[in-house]
Amino acid sequence: MRNTERSARPIVDPILNSTSAARIKTIGVLGGMGPLATVCFLQRVVEQIKADRDQDYVPIILNCAPQIPDRSAAILRKGKSPLPELKRALAQLEAVSPDFVCMPCNTAHFWYAELTEGLAIPFVHIVDPVIHKLNIFAKSQTCVGLLATNATIKAEIYQQRAGKSYEWTIPDDITQYSFVDSAIGLIKGGRQSDAIPLIRQAMRYLVDVKHVRIIVLGCTELSLIADWLDPEVIIVDSAGVLARWVADYALGARIDSQ
Amino acid sequence: MRNTERSARPIVDPILNSTSAARIKTIGVLGGMGPLATVCFLQRVVEQIKADRDQDYVPIILNCAPQIPDRSAAILRKGKSPLPELKRALAQLEAVSPDFVCMPCNTAHFWYAELTEGLAIPFVHIVDPVIHKLNIFAKSQTCVGLLATNATIKAEIYQQRAGKSYEWTIPDDITQYSFVDSAIGLIKGGRQSDAIPLIRQAMRYLVDVKHVRIIVLGCTELSLIADWLDPEVIIVDSAGVLARWVADYALGARIDSQ
Repeated sequence: MRNTERSARPIVDPILNSTSAARIKTIGVLGGMGPLATVCFLQRVVEQIKADRDQDYVPIILNCAPQIPDRSAAILRKGKSPLPELKRALAQLEAVSPDFVCMPCNTAHFWYAELTEGLAIPFVHIVDPVIHKLNIFAKSQTCVGLLATNATIKAEIYQQRAGKSYEWTIPDDITQYSFVDSAIGLIKGGRQSDAIPLIRQAMRYLVDVKHVRIIVLGCTELSLIADWLDPEVIIVDSAGVLARWVADYALGARIDSQ
Repeated sequence: MRNTERSARPIVDPILNSTSAARIKTIGVLGGMGPLATVCFLQRVVEQIKADRDQDYVPIILNCAPQIPDRSAAILRKGKSPLPELKRALAQLEAVSPDFVCMPCNTAHFWYAELTEGLAIPFVHIVDPVIHKLNIFAKSQTCVGLLATNATIKAEIYQQRAGKSYEWTIPDDITQYSFVDSAIGLIKGGRQSDAIPLIRQAMRYLVDVKHVRIIVLGCTELSLIADWLDPEVIIVDSAGVLARWVADYALGARIDSQ
């Protein structure tokens, strides 16, 4: 399943950008998908900054717009498209003039091409910091487990953005529906502790059956339980690495990856 | 110490507003004072909502503007006034048209009169939900302990907004400087665990020496450690009750208190 206007963009390795270090950038966050994941993401952004006084933290504009129609339903079941609401929410953000934007929802990146079309400011794609992180410790073509919504998997959001860099390994259908999608739904309803055993079970499948040693949490809801998952595999939390990325970028330590 | 243009406004008891229940309101948050307290506040807002799907949560626009000059320095030491930056941040929020705004920083309410002057939308004063909460279980004239920044205390932000409803009891100078202000500074730097014993010590003073049985956490930073404080007194967390208030208001369960 493809969004035909989407094409893989090259990943630009972040480099120190000494010229922009003088001014802290304002981060725009298109959030609310879901709200708890957005708050967890903001917390991870703020925690990146080591500061003793308010004024050394990064400025953030958040549009938490939970009424955006369900992304998975639109991708998998031809439900109402969230694109008009996503565009409206992004335009509201733009009105407050952040220096760049990000969107802590993997599935919504299905509409990344449409959202960035004509956008005057950089929009950090959530897959880029994941790939950057993987590039640090994984060889090209390594099997990487992917825990994400069924919609993110079916839309091949990781595969299209990352190109052929890694071999993405996904759960079988029963594991995906019964454990991963169920867990994400539970977290959206604030039931993190009920979700943890389900995700542990899905991880066991990827480790024992598919023999992966690296697992990407490709859904920002999963960031809420990332600290309680199996420590025997390497976990790359898409929300966590995006938070680190945007904080560094706001502080002038990265160039745009778009 | 008074801001001469400020006057106590009457507290209007919230009542059910059945006519507005049909549409969820968008909450505007003027935040970043400090950023960790703002994230904690957002989390408390989101956690008020019991929902299984994103679309049932409340929309939030956040302007997290940590570069706003230090409020305490301005009040206590004639430091640079934060008012122009507060106004600018509020105007940015207004541009995105929230239905009402709030500001999870007690000390910044020193400039509440100036900020609300000519504002077209309601601005919930942080002291109002505290007074509402106190009214539920405390008799008028009860001694209530107040843990807040020295600036909030010296500016009499609680006393002026609440009128003569309660007798506000504050720590002595040594306790205020060595424990309360120090703890708030530690929390701003992310050192919550170091702050807990200091605030417990200040609470001991209020309980043992001043014999209070109710303590208001009149600084939103203190909300970050509220769950680890002494359970033998009643604690009213200004950030927590503001979160509950704005969530209820957004859902149509309250009328404006302004």
